Amino acid sequence: MTTRILLNCDMGESFGAWRMGDDAHAMPLIDQANLACGFHAGDPLTIQRTVALAVQHGVSIGAHPSYPDLAGFGRRHLACSAEEVEALVLYQLGALDAFCQAAGTQLAYVKPHGALYNDLVRDDELLDAVLRACASFRRDLPLMVLALADNSRERRLAAAVGVPLLFEAFADRAYLADGQLAPRRLAGAVHQDPERTLSQALSIARGQPFADLDGKPLQLQADSLCVHGDNPESLAVLRRLRAQLDAA
Amino acid sequence: MTTRILLNCDMGESFGAWRMGDDAHAMPLIDQANLACGFHAGDPLTIQRTVALAVQHGVSIGAHPSYPDLAGFGRRHLACSAEEVEALVLYQLGALDAFCQAAGTQLAYVKPHGALYNDLVRDDELLDAVLRACASFRRDLPLMVLALADNSRERRLAAAVGVPLLFEAFADRAYLADGQLAPRRLAGAVHQDPERTLSQALSIARGQPFADLDGKPLQLQADSLCVHGDNPESLAVLRRLRAQLDAA
Amino acid sequence: MTTRILLNCDMGESFGAWRMGDDAHAMPLIDQANLACGFHAGDPLTIQRTVALAVQHGVSIGAHPSYPDLAGFGRRHLACSAEEVEALVLYQLGALDAFCQAAGTQLAYVKPHGALYNDLVRDDELLDAVLRACASFRRDLPLMVLALADNSRERRLAAAVGVPLLFEAFADRAYLADGQLAPRRLAGAVHQDPERTLSQALSIARGQPFADLDGKPLQLQADSLCVHGDNPESLAVLRRLRAQLDAA
Amino acid sequence: MTTRILLNCDMGESFGAWRMGDDAHAMPLIDQANLACGFHAGDPLTIQRTVALAVQHGVSIGAHPSYPDLAGFGRRHLACSAEEVEALVLYQLGALDAFCQAAGTQLAYVKPHGALYNDLVRDDELLDAVLRACASFRRDLPLMVLALADNSRERRLAAAVGVPLLFEAFADRAYLADGQLAPRRLAGAVHQDPERTLSQALSIARGQPFADLDGKPLQLQADSLCVHGDNPESLAVLRRLRAQLDAA
Repeated sequence: MTTRILLNCDMGESFGAWRMGDDAHAMPLIDQANLACGFHAGDPLTIQRTVALAVQHGVSIGAHPSYPDLAGFGRRHLACSAEEVEALVLYQLGALDAFCQAAGTQLAYVKPHGALYNDLVRDDELLDAVLRACASFRRDLPLMVLALADNSRERRLAAAVGVPLLFEAFADRAYLADGQLAPRRLAGAVHQDPERTLSQALSIARGQPFADLDGKPLQLQADSLCVHGDNPESLAVLRRLRAQLDAA
Repeated sequence: MTTRILLNCDMGESFGAWRMGDDAHAMPLIDQANLACGFHAGDPLTIQRTVALAVQHGVSIGAHPSYPDLAGFGRRHLACSAEEVEALVLYQLGALDAFCQAAGTQLAYVKPHGALYNDLVRDDELLDAVLRACASFRRDLPLMVLALADNSRERRLAAAVGVPLLFEAFADRAYLADGQLAPRRLAGAVHQDPERTLSQALSIARGQPFADLDGKPLQLQADSLCVHGDNPESLAVLRRLRAQLDAA
Repeated sequence: MTTRILLNCDMGESFGAWRMGDDAHAMPLIDQANLACGFHAGDPLTIQRTVALAVQHGVSIGAHPSYPDLAGFGRRHLACSAEEVEALVLYQLGALDAFCQAAGTQLAYVKPHGALYNDLVRDDELLDAVLRACASFRRDLPLMVLALADNSRERRLAAAVGVPLLFEAFADRAYLADGQLAPRRLAGAVHQDPERTLSQALSIARGQPFADLDGKPLQLQADSLCVHGDNPESLAVLRRLRAQLDAA
Repeated sequence: MTTRILLNCDMGESFGAWRMGDDAHAMPLIDQANLACGFHAGDPLTIQRTVALAVQHGVSIGAHPSYPDLAGFGRRHLACSAEEVEALVLYQLGALDAFCQAAGTQLAYVKPHGALYNDLVRDDELLDAVLRACASFRRDLPLMVLALADNSRERRLAAAVGVPLLFEAFADRAYLADGQLAPRRLAGAVHQDPERTLSQALSIARGQPFADLDGKPLQLQADSLCVHGDNPESLAVLRRLRAQLDAA
């Protein structure tokens, strides 16, 4: 039984004088850092410093591209055309990778942010646009998408343009039967109990089923778990999770 | 006697619904296109299309990075620190190069835009910051700077970080004795007579002296001439210049 | 029979160094200028100059607020909450009105721009948010909305917060049976023949029926016609329309 | 002997998802809130909520307009023309006042932010531009400027356009002999000792001299003291200052 799963965390989400997250404490605990690229957060200096922090801790750097919406932190759907999305993702990949190259590393994967991430679950044209951005940026650059009960749609579209996929799951969110995240407006959508979060994380790491929102067993195949480390509580859970995974 | 000189032109300065320039007509006439990178102009789609146009006409693509100032079109000095300038130039180089790579080419040089270009003439720290951005982006990526009567300052700072320099001159601007451009507020700062512009261009191309603002001979060593092609008049001059250089 | 109808036109849509429209030639021909407020176009200096131009020609000034989306020119839907929309409209009303007050006049009405305008036709919460912004800005400040075959929905929501409505129609667009504009992707959605545009304008001005996209008679009650004046062709149509309305 | 002096504090400097300051705890302790207007901080919803908080605590609302520079938080000089500054200040006054009006109050004064505030000390054209923006926005709207040993320059320019002035001093900053703030790069520029801050505040409140950076007595005539309340330490000092002023 393998419990090898990576931990990914959104990073570099400060902007100018505004601080967000606790990157210094979370970075040593994770494997993959999703770095804001300037469109929802992450001015150039913030990117530069966050890349340096990731390199220092041997953490893989992923691009976290977004719709251009600083005021909405990329959380609001913006009705861009597919060609606009392809271009704005490509722009952000290049901008971030410049800092990676300057630091002696390179972009390891792409994980869209916020509303763009969510839109990919439903919109084939947008998913295809993001895949083409990845493919045109660099051969074999992986795209990270939501692990579902059935990811055949994602696999089919990705295979068409030759982009590898990484599947991510969430330890602190309740799931619907098909592997979609339970919408936040539903009761129980976010686990409040750290034990529940840890237990779900370990189940996913082991490839074992865990209870969905209705209590029914759900099994997900995931390469990476999305974690948070922006406050003392989430950092505490992250430390325990890191320790349990390392011990396994 | 060689008359080999390249022609460079600012390109891709549209933004969203706003058009600027006449890239389609100017591109076939030039050798080097300075492409806006999103900070003073050039949204991602505009960048993508302008890169495609440059590739179609075999034109070298240079980055035209700017202070972040859309409303001021990058023409207003912004008091950034040297580390901010290094980071914002690096960001723009990467963003533009992503489109170059996707189109099968790569960034050929860097020419700062507007106020940033002007600030480099006076500020060693800023010039060093831009040079470091070039050096950290890619070995031997050249920086284009203003050809002066004496460029020893630029050569010294560039040599320290191993960045090659390209020197550019202007055909339609009057010069001061030291090779600085005559400020636009001075009478005669911009040549109104196309014949004067053409004559100055050919003198520079041949490495011969031409008259500065005071009528005294000035000799500049330049690799490239900055030209304009955004209206019928400037396009007409550009066509004649191209023809004369090709004939020489 | 009265043919009194006002002509409104989008104005002040330049931004910084980018020009859009031909405000100087269109302004003398219209009654109401919809001024961009900085979120899709219209930097502060452009606003100041366009207000001065409107005052000079005795043209009423309306606010043309938008989603915050310079790169998309406010034409892309942005999933803002109702409270966000109320606040961002209020912000833009105040910003524009400051220039009106400084020029000795005041905001005469509000006409949302682009995607926000379109979203109001379908979304009661958004329409209510914009109405509340109008009501809280100034008592009896009118909101301009699309004249439909049946505007009872708009009248009901506006009456609830005490906001007067102005109804606008389009002379150069084909209509569906319910008074919605025919989507631009449909053949015949935009009249290419100036005679058709002029004829539809006069029918609307007279309160007479005209042919919808299917050739069936449609009658709209409108206070204002939306016109364009950003190129020589549209200016020519606008001049003829102005002359015919003045003669009527 | 009167000790009547007002306390002013920068407020509403959050932006979208980013939090800054502790407005909820500081607002009850101050007399005047300088509200960010969207150019360096303060999205429309933040403005709306901060206005509501100020109204709830009976705090006067001042505009805190800035150069347009979110990434630099308005702290970087931007070389705007005088007419650009007049227009961008007017824009921000109007935007903020819309929320004041909607909340049943109105803008009480104007205090420029960051680099713009600093630039006014040296640049007559810019100071005149800001004064004209105030005058054209509303008769008798006061401008808050730095209290110097000699404010005759400010009084002369303000009188020419009929704008009242408010003078502010700083309790936690060391001063040069002429009443300019000691640059932050100098040792001792910012008082680390809360007792020193409180003592300087009370001296200024009483119109008594206090020690400048060189230990020589400096006397300033000030209407308002600039205070901070964005962390527990500054809030503690603010509480003590409030109590001492109320007791005096």
